[in-house]
Formats: sequence, C-alpha cells, structure tokens
Amino acid sequence: MKRIKLTISYDGTNYCGWQQQPNGITVEEVLNRELSKLLNEDIHIIGASRTDSGVHALGNVCVFDTECRIPGDKVSYAVNRSLPEDIVVVKSEEVDLDFHPRYCDSTKTYEYRIWNDTFPLATNRLYTHHVHDKLNIEAMREAAKYLPGEHDFTSFCSVGAQVESKVRTVYSVYILTEGPLVTIRVKGAGFLYNMVRIIAGTLLLVGTGAKNPEFVKEALEAKDRAAAGPTAPAKGLTLIKIEY
Amino acid sequence: MKRIKLTISYDGTNYCGWQQQPNGITVEEVLNRELSKLLNEDIHIIGASRTDSGVHALGNVCVFDTECRIPGDKVSYAVNRSLPEDIVVVKSEEVDLDFHPRYCDSTKTYEYRIWNDTFPLATNRLYTHHVHDKLNIEAMREAAKYLPGEHDFTSFCSVGAQVESKVRTVYSVYILTEGPLVTIRVKGAGFLYNMVRIIAGTLLLVGTGAKNPEFVKEALEAKDRAAAGPTAPAKGLTLIKIEY
Repeated sequence: MKRIKLTISYDGTNYCGWQQQPNGITVEEVLNRELSKLLNEDIHIIGASRTDSGVHALGNVCVFDTECRIPGDKVSYAVNRSLPEDIVVVKSEEVDLDFHPRYCDSTKTYEYRIWNDTFPLATNRLYTHHVHDKLNIEAMREAAKYLPGEHDFTSFCSVGAQVESKVRTVYSVYILTEGPLVTIRVKGAGFLYNMVRIIAGTLLLVGTGAKNPEFVKEALEAKDRAAAGPTAPAKGLTLIKIEY
Repeated sequence: MKRIKLTISYDGTNYCGWQQQPNGITVEEVLNRELSKLLNEDIHIIGASRTDSGVHALGNVCVFDTECRIPGDKVSYAVNRSLPEDIVVVKSEEVDLDFHPRYCDSTKTYEYRIWNDTFPLATNRLYTHHVHDKLNIEAMREAAKYLPGEHDFTSFCSVGAQVESKVRTVYSVYILTEGPLVTIRVKGAGFLYNMVRIIAGTLLLVGTGAKNPEFVKEALEAKDRAAAGPTAPAKGLTLIKIEY
C-alpha cells in the first residue's frame, strides 16, 4: 500500500464546496469517483481544507491510500484526463504513510479578492467580490495590523462551528492593490469556519468608512461573532496554497 | 435625437460572438433587446468590433441613436440592472451624431493569453489557452518584431473574409510574462478577420520550436493563409480597448 498526496486547483463556482454532502455535487465526491474508476479501487480521499460552496482553490491538498502500481507522480496526468475542466490535479506524489493533510503542521495562504470599481468586470465576476464604494486602503492596512499573532478568533468564526478551541495563529495579513483589484492575503497555521471571509467582511467595513481601524481590535477582544463584520461572499475567496 | 456611445465588457464564453445571427445568442442581440426594453424604442446598436464566438472584451464600443431623456452617462447604470452578469456596460456617454465606431480612426488593443504550464489552471481556463510545452519567449519576441508596420496581412486573415484590401497597420506586438502566464499584446489601427488569433497561433509555432523566428517574415511575404500558423483558440483572446 502507498499514500498519494494530490495538490488540487478548482473553480468552486459550480460545486457545493469540498466536503461530500447530500445536497449537491462536491469536489471531494468528484475526486473520489474519478480516482476510484481510474484505480479500480474504492478510494476515499482525506482533504486538508473543507472549502465552502463557491470558494476556489489553486492548491488544496488531499491524500488517499492505494494498492495501485501507477507511480505517484503520474496519477495527476491519468486522473486529469477524466476530471471536469474546473477541477485540475496540479501535482501528485507519493508520501509517507504517516503524512496526514490536517494533523501535520502547515501554513495556509488564502486570498480574498475585491473588484473596487463603479461596475463589476464581466471576465472576473466569478473570482472577485464587487465593491462599488471607493475603499480606503490605508485604513484597511491599519486595521489588518491587529490580526497577526495568536488570538482567540471567536468573533471571526461562524456560530455553530464545532471546535474545542477558537485560538488560532495568523502569520500575516497583507492588502495588495493592482488597479481596481484589491487582494487581502492571509497566511496562518489554521483557520476557523468562515474565518477568512469574516476577516474580509470586517476589513471591508473599515475600507468603506463604516468603521474605524480599531473596530478590528475591539472585535477580537469581544470574543463574540456579533462584534465582527459580515461574512464576505464566497466567490471572492481562493485557497492559494498549503505548505507542510 | 442623440447618439450614445457604450463601452462594453463581456465574457464571451456563452455567446456566439458579437454579431446578431440565427444560430445562437450574441452580445449584440442581448444589448439590443435590453436597451429597447429600457428606452421603449427599437434600438439597433452599431458595434466597433465584431468579436468571434468565445472571444472576451474589456472595452468593445458601440453606439445607438435614441430620443430618450436619460442623460448619456446614466444609461450604463440603468441597463446594467437588466443585463446578464457576463455583459457589463462599463461606461456610457453622449457623442456627436457623426461619430461612427468603425469609420472613425481608432487604435485597438487586443491581448492573447497563454497559460504555459504542465496543467491548465481551473480558475482561468475560460480566459487563457493552455500550452503544455515550455515556450521559448525570446524566440517569440524575435518573431514578433516582423509584425509592426504597414503590411499586407493576407497570410494572417481567415479565408473567406470579404474585404477589399488586406493591408493593415500594426503598431506594436509585445510578449509579456508573469509566472506561467504569457500575454501577447497587439496594438493596431485595425485588424482582419481572425488576425490576432492567427498571429498568436503563428508565434506559438515559434515558441514551441516548430518554426524559427524568420517564419513570421516568410509568412508575411507569402501573402497566403497557408503560409502562417493555425488560428489559436478563441477563449485566449480579449479585446482590451479601442481608443478614438
């Protein structure tokens, strides 16, 4: 038996997220189905990040165990032939049997993209959240400074999430601009349910002037979901990479 | 009566190109329909560039005449409310009655985008042409140098195009790279049918090493469509802007 690690890129537009569920097609389901067909085995992948419905990924990670003889690095070529074009395995490799995508230490990088112009752009509407009002980028950068570090992120976690501790470590939050495109790049050791989208929604309250930068500090201290901003729309979010 | 100029962005994926035709829905048809409903008049727009099926635009241009009282700059806001999200009027303005989007002098900028990596990217698959083989960018730049200037572009025009002269002026052809993304940016006073896509297909023959840079010079001199490379796929092409 061997364990194969896949790095996967997908366009989340047409999927009910990563995790298999009864209400609609998911990325996990499609990968399980196509890998099982390809390898003629019952494959059950274990994913690193259970992205929400509509969220995109350039480099989500999963593993599965197999008896197959295909070399690890060739699995990507083989499975991409039968995957729909909005799911692409960008890399495959054999890893140690004790490698686990969720329990091994990792750094995750997410980007939340905002199109800040009078009108949305037809050609990136599926991958950006359109904000009409001119954003104050300097205020957003000021606000973002409160986030890095080890904090209790209860205010930045959707109610109902079943986790023991809401303490997480964020390494950095950068706000980059390129014309009307504003990118919030967040790097951390792990994230709570909807955490990056709530960070984006909260920074947008500051960017539009509805709140001042200290609002983020106060939201963190409150440890109450109601103290932070709204959850920004899924389509603006992309999981960029997971480094182990 | 007044004449309104629209600047239009669209995702060409789901359209049979710009020009109204019996076989499928087009951008022109949708704009005529929604403008006619909005203004309660029979509107017939005149477009600047009749982009092919699957080609995208950030700034195509069209005009129409109307008796409506809506100020020119407000038409964009009004019509965007009823347009599908893959067509966006990014600007509207009143222009002189003798302004014609095709007969007035203009400079058009197109970009042909290539994703040059082992696998395509799920999130830009609709807007780039995937090329697996590593491209020789320097050879492509060398080849592109033959294109600017006034030339007979017969070799770079699809057979069957009904135009009197195939002489056109290209101002510049730049090849830009950003990671695996290779962008061919072409600027000119006007283009023949499929010209930018044939330029891209020909430069790709050079980039993959199938031809040397002088192939472009020979193709131009031959004045024969068969002497140039293939027409590259539509989805890689975007009409960036038209300047008058």
